[in-house]
Amino acid sequence: MNFDVLVLGSGAATPTYNRHCSAQLLSLCGSQVLVDCGEGTQNQIRKYHKKIQSIRTIFISHLHGDHFFGLPGLLSTMHLCGRTEPLTVYAPKGAKAVIDLLFEVSGTEVRYELVINEIDVDDVTTIHCDKHFSVKAFPLNHSITTFGFLFEENNILLNLRPHARSQYNMTNDDCIRVKQGEDLTLDDGSVIPNSKLTLPPRLPRRYAYCCDTAYDESLIPIVEGVDMLCMESTFDNSLSSLAEERCHCTALQAATIAAKARVRRLVLTHFSARYTDIAPLLAEAQTMFADTCCATDGAVFQLVNQQAMPE
Amino acid sequence: MNFDVLVLGSGAATPTYNRHCSAQLLSLCGSQVLVDCGEGTQNQIRKYHKKIQSIRTIFISHLHGDHFFGLPGLLSTMHLCGRTEPLTVYAPKGAKAVIDLLFEVSGTEVRYELVINEIDVDDVTTIHCDKHFSVKAFPLNHSITTFGFLFEENNILLNLRPHARSQYNMTNDDCIRVKQGEDLTLDDGSVIPNSKLTLPPRLPRRYAYCCDTAYDESLIPIVEGVDMLCMESTFDNSLSSLAEERCHCTALQAATIAAKARVRRLVLTHFSARYTDIAPLLAEAQTMFADTCCATDGAVFQLVNQQAMPE
Repeated sequence: MNFDVLVLGSGAATPTYNRHCSAQLLSLCGSQVLVDCGEGTQNQIRKYHKKIQSIRTIFISHLHGDHFFGLPGLLSTMHLCGRTEPLTVYAPKGAKAVIDLLFEVSGTEVRYELVINEIDVDDVTTIHCDKHFSVKAFPLNHSITTFGFLFEENNILLNLRPHARSQYNMTNDDCIRVKQGEDLTLDDGSVIPNSKLTLPPRLPRRYAYCCDTAYDESLIPIVEGVDMLCMESTFDNSLSSLAEERCHCTALQAATIAAKARVRRLVLTHFSARYTDIAPLLAEAQTMFADTCCATDGAVFQLVNQQAMPE
Repeated sequence: MNFDVLVLGSGAATPTYNRHCSAQLLSLCGSQVLVDCGEGTQNQIRKYHKKIQSIRTIFISHLHGDHFFGLPGLLSTMHLCGRTEPLTVYAPKGAKAVIDLLFEVSGTEVRYELVINEIDVDDVTTIHCDKHFSVKAFPLNHSITTFGFLFEENNILLNLRPHARSQYNMTNDDCIRVKQGEDLTLDDGSVIPNSKLTLPPRLPRRYAYCCDTAYDESLIPIVEGVDMLCMESTFDNSLSSLAEERCHCTALQAATIAAKARVRRLVLTHFSARYTDIAPLLAEAQTMFADTCCATDGAVFQLVNQQAMPE
């Protein structure tokens, strides 16, 4: 099952000719998840030929307009296009009052079940868990209440030991149950314990999204070892004072977090509109962390499976 | 001085690949005026190389998302880009509460003077008048409180009679004052009355914007004889029942208003996303009113000067 991140918007604060405001569409083992929803996100979803109605869950990091002002239009379009499937939105406190007021003044009554869960956590906390994935939220260091998100896939099947299937003449159903952790009962009533049939599963893929935030080393243990870390890098390091003043990161600071947290891969995003060329930000980050790349609108980043290391 | 209408969005309800939600940028005798502000309007302004900060006045017809959800982002971008010039927004009741709440939850304090005037009129009423143009608002027949707008240029100079300048040896300053309606005092103290020096001015150009509205003949006297009428035509006439149910117009109905009001030109806009080809709507309208054209995103419609007919 795929674990992909489609960048819908990689710009900061205001849209530019080639960068929309923050939004990412995650394909999480069969589920479509939206992370942040800057103005124009619904247009971007269409531009990249994705289906608005397939989104089941939305996570909003904070209520600055460039991460949030596309949400009312998206919810409205879902309604106008006849949605009946429920939708869950996780967002900081205040989001529900905004959506309620906008629906009130526009005379909108959505026909689908819209659940807005306002996030209120002080530390790393699981806020969502379903059969496909779980999500932890954690506070970021920004000018208003802001959360980072850690997405992790769930229910990864065990691997069958070589020859187990043929040795015990297992059916397809047997295989599925055993991969899910059950023991195997043979026709003669004897029981083969699961540990004799299986090897450890591959590692669950994990994706961390930290946008917007100042440089803050308290992030390091939270995102340690993730398959991919997406960090904001609004500025280059020559503007580190401005970054500090505005509670943003520089490319070098993002790469420092990535290096110290020993993540597999770093994606920079949320570039200030002042940069028409972000190559210097990439180069700056790569001096600290080689496996860095820059988000562009429309880019897809795939998280590949990793087998657990033998103990 | 130009009187132009740049279409920023010509779609209804939800954006499509080639039609954004409702918005028009008017160049009104030197002033930049925005009419409606669907989601993505700020991107469209940039796409067509217009300057966001040159907009001084915004008119919002109603608070349905496809006419309004781009406003918070636009106001925020004006702030983030350092605006200091004041801005006036005219919008139906409820707009101010929305903007206030959005600014509150996003921690935004704009540095420019933002005046939101909530429109509350029962009949055709002048809501704005400056040295360049005046604007009348009038209620439309829609599912929520909605206003149409009639834009009219102000302070059109009188025409000098042929030979008046040379006959009285008038200076440039004399000419300007006389064109503005003053009498001329000669060096010997005698006074030439203005009527002996001037001919009637050209007609003030007038543009009416009616979107969204059901078919309603009470519009006819309001928009009578305008240089250009922009009417919504969400549906073709085979869907007239649906149009009535949703308080929208068909192309034929829009053309009927145009014909009965003897306007100079009709522009259709606000097309349902179901139409990938709007040629049938144009053809339908032209059976009733020949001088009809269809808005497309990026189209510019110029209102040309018309001399007053001799009495």
